Amino acid sequence: MVVVMAPEATQEEIDAVVALVRSAGGDAFVSRGVSRTIVGLVGDVDDFEALNLGSRGGVLQVMRVSAPYKLVSRQHHPARSVIRVGGVPIGPDTLSVIAGPCAVETPEQTLEAVRMAKRAGACLLRGGAFKPRTSPYSYQGLGERGLRILAEVRQETGLPVVTEVIDPGSVDMVASYADMLQIGARNMQNFALLQAVGRAGRPVLLKRGFSATIEEWLSAAEYIAQRGNLDIVLCERGIRTFETATRNTLDISAVPVVQRLSHLPVIVDPSHSGGRRDLVVPLTRAAIAAGADGVIIDIHPEPKTALCDGDQALVESDVREIADAVTILSPLMGRTLTMPVRAGALPARAA
Amino acid sequence: MVVVMAPEATQEEIDAVVALVRSAGGDAFVSRGVSRTIVGLVGDVDDFEALNLGSRGGVLQVMRVSAPYKLVSRQHHPARSVIRVGGVPIGPDTLSVIAGPCAVETPEQTLEAVRMAKRAGACLLRGGAFKPRTSPYSYQGLGERGLRILAEVRQETGLPVVTEVIDPGSVDMVASYADMLQIGARNMQNFALLQAVGRAGRPVLLKRGFSATIEEWLSAAEYIAQRGNLDIVLCERGIRTFETATRNTLDISAVPVVQRLSHLPVIVDPSHSGGRRDLVVPLTRAAIAAGADGVIIDIHPEPKTALCDGDQALVESDVREIADAVTILSPLMGRTLTMPVRAGALPARAA
Amino acid sequence: MVVVMAPEATQEEIDAVVALVRSAGGDAFVSRGVSRTIVGLVGDVDDFEALNLGSRGGVLQVMRVSAPYKLVSRQHHPARSVIRVGGVPIGPDTLSVIAGPCAVETPEQTLEAVRMAKRAGACLLRGGAFKPRTSPYSYQGLGERGLRILAEVRQETGLPVVTEVIDPGSVDMVASYADMLQIGARNMQNFALLQAVGRAGRPVLLKRGFSATIEEWLSAAEYIAQRGNLDIVLCERGIRTFETATRNTLDISAVPVVQRLSHLPVIVDPSHSGGRRDLVVPLTRAAIAAGADGVIIDIHPEPKTALCDGDQALVESDVREIADAVTILSPLMGRTLTMPVRAGALPARAA
Amino acid sequence: MVVVMAPEATQEEIDAVVALVRSAGGDAFVSRGVSRTIVGLVGDVDDFEALNLGSRGGVLQVMRVSAPYKLVSRQHHPARSVIRVGGVPIGPDTLSVIAGPCAVETPEQTLEAVRMAKRAGACLLRGGAFKPRTSPYSYQGLGERGLRILAEVRQETGLPVVTEVIDPGSVDMVASYADMLQIGARNMQNFALLQAVGRAGRPVLLKRGFSATIEEWLSAAEYIAQRGNLDIVLCERGIRTFETATRNTLDISAVPVVQRLSHLPVIVDPSHSGGRRDLVVPLTRAAIAAGADGVIIDIHPEPKTALCDGDQALVESDVREIADAVTILSPLMGRTLTMPVRAGALPARAA
Repeated sequence: MVVVMAPEATQEEIDAVVALVRSAGGDAFVSRGVSRTIVGLVGDVDDFEALNLGSRGGVLQVMRVSAPYKLVSRQHHPARSVIRVGGVPIGPDTLSVIAGPCAVETPEQTLEAVRMAKRAGACLLRGGAFKPRTSPYSYQGLGERGLRILAEVRQETGLPVVTEVIDPGSVDMVASYADMLQIGARNMQNFALLQAVGRAGRPVLLKRGFSATIEEWLSAAEYIAQRGNLDIVLCERGIRTFETATRNTLDISAVPVVQRLSHLPVIVDPSHSGGRRDLVVPLTRAAIAAGADGVIIDIHPEPKTALCDGDQALVESDVREIADAVTILSPLMGRTLTMPVRAGALPARAA
Repeated sequence: MVVVMAPEATQEEIDAVVALVRSAGGDAFVSRGVSRTIVGLVGDVDDFEALNLGSRGGVLQVMRVSAPYKLVSRQHHPARSVIRVGGVPIGPDTLSVIAGPCAVETPEQTLEAVRMAKRAGACLLRGGAFKPRTSPYSYQGLGERGLRILAEVRQETGLPVVTEVIDPGSVDMVASYADMLQIGARNMQNFALLQAVGRAGRPVLLKRGFSATIEEWLSAAEYIAQRGNLDIVLCERGIRTFETATRNTLDISAVPVVQRLSHLPVIVDPSHSGGRRDLVVPLTRAAIAAGADGVIIDIHPEPKTALCDGDQALVESDVREIADAVTILSPLMGRTLTMPVRAGALPARAA
Repeated sequence: MVVVMAPEATQEEIDAVVALVRSAGGDAFVSRGVSRTIVGLVGDVDDFEALNLGSRGGVLQVMRVSAPYKLVSRQHHPARSVIRVGGVPIGPDTLSVIAGPCAVETPEQTLEAVRMAKRAGACLLRGGAFKPRTSPYSYQGLGERGLRILAEVRQETGLPVVTEVIDPGSVDMVASYADMLQIGARNMQNFALLQAVGRAGRPVLLKRGFSATIEEWLSAAEYIAQRGNLDIVLCERGIRTFETATRNTLDISAVPVVQRLSHLPVIVDPSHSGGRRDLVVPLTRAAIAAGADGVIIDIHPEPKTALCDGDQALVESDVREIADAVTILSPLMGRTLTMPVRAGALPARAA
Repeated sequence: MVVVMAPEATQEEIDAVVALVRSAGGDAFVSRGVSRTIVGLVGDVDDFEALNLGSRGGVLQVMRVSAPYKLVSRQHHPARSVIRVGGVPIGPDTLSVIAGPCAVETPEQTLEAVRMAKRAGACLLRGGAFKPRTSPYSYQGLGERGLRILAEVRQETGLPVVTEVIDPGSVDMVASYADMLQIGARNMQNFALLQAVGRAGRPVLLKRGFSATIEEWLSAAEYIAQRGNLDIVLCERGIRTFETATRNTLDISAVPVVQRLSHLPVIVDPSHSGGRRDLVVPLTRAAIAAGADGVIIDIHPEPKTALCDGDQALVESDVREIADAVTILSPLMGRTLTMPVRAGALPARAA
């Protein structure tokens, strides 16, 4: 159940709703958006009915939730949303390219990869400092040291930083460096982490679990939204199937299906879905043609020495093809390619 | 093992190779292409080694087969092939739209659907007279009566006919009406049927089984090729996954992957993969952008009354969008949209 | 729609129903069972309603089919069926072991494998003469020569023969040698083949397609039943999943699920599902404990030289374990282990 | 890379190894087992080679890790392990039944469910206080209040408590109530959580992710082991496939496959894999017959009112069947059914 407060509702009125819900044995989470405040209720709906919340002071609307997700649904929010990341828009009128190294290894490797990213048309910089890896013996990332490198490269290049967070306990620390927090595929149903980023005050990039249905994916987004954060971008990155020619199977249909169900932007990761460098360009083209709001791409200056996922990293000779594809296809899809903000134009942040 | 005969090899030399193989307990299938004749061997390779086939008269090359497919592989045939269907080319330089009703129901419905198909940009006409259905209580098609309707509509519209064959025993009959024989997804590993169409003297549209790996799909094509028919077009039509929002999951990556492995053209079926009308246009765009050599689309003048798969049939209001997509995207992909042959320009065939 | 005729219905009354249905543009298939005759209708149900079939002479009941299968359903046939193969029962009170070589290679190999099969507790003999293989370059079986070997081994050992048929055109020939016709997983939706074995007068072993849902599997059985043959045994043999440690994933739950939906017996193939010799014994035990009506097992006297699926064939040292498992577990599950018929007790059949 | 210390190694020697590794830019985790101490290394193997660790004081063996898991592998630890949970053994010689309510709702419901569990043969009590649910609007569990109920029921019944933990931040709190920490399927690759339970000093029940390969599952166990906790029991609970008749597909083959690869015990969850009450008994039987070291079963006194997964909870009439199955099948598999410890025999723990 979701209680939408009126724009003019006071803090006392909000607190009163929360107190009522808790007195009935439930829990309530307050989500303050720019134009309205939402109170998400968890517990037994029948108990809440008796509270007669719709007639309380400051309450605009009470929505019973029948679908597993509500706030991220397009049903009550028909217009598709625009999410801003360090000032850069992601949404229905633009095409946004996010690119950079899969894992941050050194300042030089990161800076060089991001320079290539810009040549490919990127307006946002990606790079992993915390890497969730199948084996504990694989490279796990540089941790906070990697975040500092990302912050420096952000200053140098002007691209806001998208980076992964893997532990509820480190969300605030990562958020102090990052412009956007990424939830990886393996953590899509790590609900404690979803709730933590829901409170972190940063936009979130939510990757689809490699075996998650679209309904589960949107329900995961709802966990974030319910904690007050509707600045969510969804990312299709391939699902697990029986086919072994590709690492995962890019579910290209998910793009139009999700855009019909949810107002949130949807981007595609052509690098991790195929797991093969030679598929990145065709899958990027397919993603844009299917209507994706953006793409996120792995770039590495020397893929052969990459500590993580080198097989799929683009090299310089591919960068031009990506740049051509996004430049030519964007206007055909009624979109403007989002250009990178000028270096130095961003305010400094903790390093 | 495959024996490639020299262009100047005589029939006697070919017969001698076949006789040798059979004397060693194996079997041999002769495939006469435009420029060369191929003898495909089935049996124990070690037995064949002793025959010293490479030194026989008229033999150009003997290839040991390590991969499960050879004739359809790009390894020994690097140039991508162009297949002609009733004079219409399908291949790397063109974009071919095949469209029409999922099932032939009446002459009027079929003709009207094909007229819509032409407005959508189609150069080939599809329509099912034999429908393999999960339940024996579902509509099974009109059979030969449906084929006669297709032949009439072909005369009326000038579009060559692509239609499905489901039984080795009826291949010759269907081939007497059709310009291209379709093997449906459920029959992709019906090897008796593959061998029968391999001998039928008509190009074949081989749909991917909904749970077939790419290797199994190409191996199925090899069964056709081994019987002497290399005029094969592959069709990706969605694979079976856990996702239920779409009927199947379009494996868009299969397009570039197959084009790298095989010289055969690859087209995409955006109608059956998604099973939803609202996905046909975005998936068509994605297919072309990923590099597909064509698309095959369901069209029905009144989807609500369709006896088969009405949920995915396009209506008039969608036709313009398809026409726009194929017209605009073709040149960007370096392709010419194949235009329909003028009505009446085709020679008559049995009706 | 299905018309159940009264036990006393005359041939004229049956013919009249068929003629009526055809006059309305549909088709009708007559299925004569021991106690009743069934007429299966194919076509538009609304057209058939107007025929008022329920009031025609000799008609006992008219059933509208809402599920995709009816004759194989337990809804109208609550008692679980017993199917007899060469006099050997398969059903709810017995446990039947079918064993033998995956592929017939030589008379000696086949006879030795079947002798091992008897020591393992087998009452029926399996062996493939026609092998559907992914690659056309793999061993395809001995064909009719293999069937003759099977018939000889049947005479020698007294075990009725279960063997695969892959082409509608060879069903009669194979049926002249075999006691039970097997439809392999790849052909589960080869409807022309299903219809052909439905008319062949032999019990059928219908393997589940490796990507078929249970509903599709039962619908495939319905195709056979609709042609008049209700002597069908279902065989779970593993489904295709993302897991690669086993060749397929044995869907053990399918056993109780199918037994609840259908009256037909269900057996399990522990050899092909795992594809590993070391899994055959534990999966055999699991199958029996889950309630399977039997198992079908690959045995080869020398797996290392097997031309087909040698990795999963049991050797002598495994045979004792199978014999122990089936002997000990059968009574616990309320079943009698079906013992082999004495050699020579079977009437001779075409060789 | 893993360094195995000699039994007589001193703390100083261990510290020296750790310091060396950190000086080379890596990280090291010390795992003290009963008979030996293991130091797990994370970082660049080539850097570690130069340290010449094999010649350092107190070092018994240095193992390069080529597989993604090592400590849980049977390769260097051939004997299958016995894990003790509150004194109750789980391992190769016993059969252990864990049962109780999916979710703790009230003290009465929990106590009654656990009394049923004992009648079914349970020696350990399960119950969820923190429930990870797909939708944020579903029942999320009682939290710490639920843990207090479990602790009370443990005192009352004598059964040690198995309960789930979902957040690294609450591991210590949950461990203060629980005898065994459960990691749910959705968290199988929540590496921060795995590392946290690796340090918590309680045995861990690690459920397989519903789309995890066996290799990924064992690699997840390795994350726990690497933090010093080898008291891990693996639980197969069904994988995600295309089949919809069951909630998931129980991968029964995983039991023998994992027992061959790892020394850790493996149990089966027949309740969550099928998601249907009518499948619990046959799947329990199949699990034991396949060689599982135990089963974990949902029981609820009134499934109709259950707040979570009521469709699969056993009722009293099923309890006798489970008791019979485990009593009869255990000795056949060479196992002793683990009996519940007498109530009151357990030392009290924090409530």
